Formats: sequence, C-alpha cells, structure tokens
Amino acid sequence: MCDGPVDILLVDDQASDAELALHALRGLESVRRVHVVRNGADALDFLFARGVFANRKDEPAPRLILLDLKLPRVSGIEVLDVLKSDPQTRNIPVIALTSSCEACDVERCYDLGVNSYVVKPVDFSAFTETVQRIAQYWLTTNEAPVC
Amino acid sequence: MCDGPVDILLVDDQASDAELALHALRGLESVRRVHVVRNGADALDFLFARGVFANRKDEPAPRLILLDLKLPRVSGIEVLDVLKSDPQTRNIPVIALTSSCEACDVERCYDLGVNSYVVKPVDFSAFTETVQRIAQYWLTTNEAPVC
Repeated sequence: MCDGPVDILLVDDQASDAELALHALRGLESVRRVHVVRNGADALDFLFARGVFANRKDEPAPRLILLDLKLPRVSGIEVLDVLKSDPQTRNIPVIALTSSCEACDVERCYDLGVNSYVVKPVDFSAFTETVQRIAQYWLTTNEAPVC
Repeated sequence: MCDGPVDILLVDDQASDAELALHALRGLESVRRVHVVRNGADALDFLFARGVFANRKDEPAPRLILLDLKLPRVSGIEVLDVLKSDPQTRNIPVIALTSSCEACDVERCYDLGVNSYVVKPVDFSAFTETVQRIAQYWLTTNEAPVC
C-alpha cells in the first residue's frame, strides 16, 4: 500500500547477531533504514515514541519488526503481547527471530498473534540468507497494512 | 516443530487460479498434499471436520491456509474471523491470497489476525512464482506451531 523503501526495527541484545542481520539487510532496495535496539523496554519506547525516543512522534512506524525473544529488561514475549494488544501497533508485522525452537515459545508467540516465527540458524551464511529471505518476503511479496 | 512434507488448504472459487496454484505447488518437497475447496463454508467444514468432511476428524490440520477473500457462501473475511477466534485453529498460518489490494480489505485482514496478505499477480508466471515463494517461506523458513 506504500511505495518506496521502508524502515525495519531489529530488536536483539546479541551484538554479533545484530551486526550480522544489519550486514544481511544492507543494500536491499526495499530497506531504507534498520533501527536497532538492544532490549524490550527500548523496543516499546521506540514504537510508542516515549523516553529517549520521544522525538519519533511524527516518524512513520517501522514496516517490519524482527524480534528476538530472550531480551533484557522486558522479554520479547512481553513486547509481542503489548504490540499485539494495542490498536496503534497490532497490525505491524512482527517476526520472532530467535535461537529458541522450544515448542512452548513457538506456541506462546502464535497465541499472542506473532505473524511468523523463525529460528536463527547457527551457521553464519545460513543466518544471512534467512534474514534476507525474511526481508524479501515481508517487504516485497507481503502487502503491508496502510502506513 | 514437525518434520516431513505437510498439507496445505487452498480456498479459491476461481478454477483457473486454483489450477495455477496447484501447478506451482506440485513437486515442492515440503508439500505432501494440497486440498482445494471452492467456498468459505466448505473451508470451515474442512477445518472443523464437519459435514462432508466429517471423516477428517483424525486427520492432521493443514499447516498452511491460502485463503481467497471473495468467496461464495461464506466470505474469506468471515472464514478468517472464525479461524482466528477459535483456539483449535487460530495458530494455523493463514495467508490471504487475493486479487483485492483495497486498503480496507488489507486492514480488516490484519485486524482479524491474518499472518500475511499477498496480492495475486495478474501475470501467470508471476502468480506461479509468488505461490512458490509463499510456500517456501511458510514451509521452510517459518517455524510452524506444534502439529
């Protein structure tokens, strides 16, 4: 529904994983900017333009959220719960991108309305390919809600 | 969470689109069988093992639903609403696959919890590629809920 490259929010406390995801997304035509936050509290502040992100009040919401689950301060599951319960944020596609393949985490995320759940591959090049596949699917094949 | 090829439910009243989607999915290793139903009432009967589909009671649920919106008898929007409101079916990934790119349809589907919304390309080969991209993403990159 909206043309042109878009912003992604990447929520990951592991610097190495965040770096690798940034590297994978760099250069994709559909991506304007990747914002990175390192914990769940910052993710919520970013999305609701609060605290240190209060200046984002007039900025467009990211069109895709890549959300790790094991996060400091506020967990990814709690972030997902808040986002999918609030009419302001519930329609932004959220992809859980996590090292957990435990059935309880998968089920809980689907229960809370995650759009998709992807397990991080351990291998570097497989991780890069997976992040690119996610971005390509969600930013080119999928039709996002109105900006 | 489950290994091996899986079943897909394709809900589309347009015979030509259904044929083309079947053709696109044929031969994919991750696909065991594609069930096709032609209206929303049959889709619900299939998923809840009722009516002519009562014999499906012990069959595994499909792992992916490709759902057209403009359907006879019960619309795709109503099917989506029922599926995402019922604990038995709410975690099955549902992809709206439709010719409608109207903002109100897109918004309504996300409001109801659709996992992803894809507009059918008009061009035949683009349609085939899109269906294959959907299947590849949802059956290999995405982690499905427990069977």
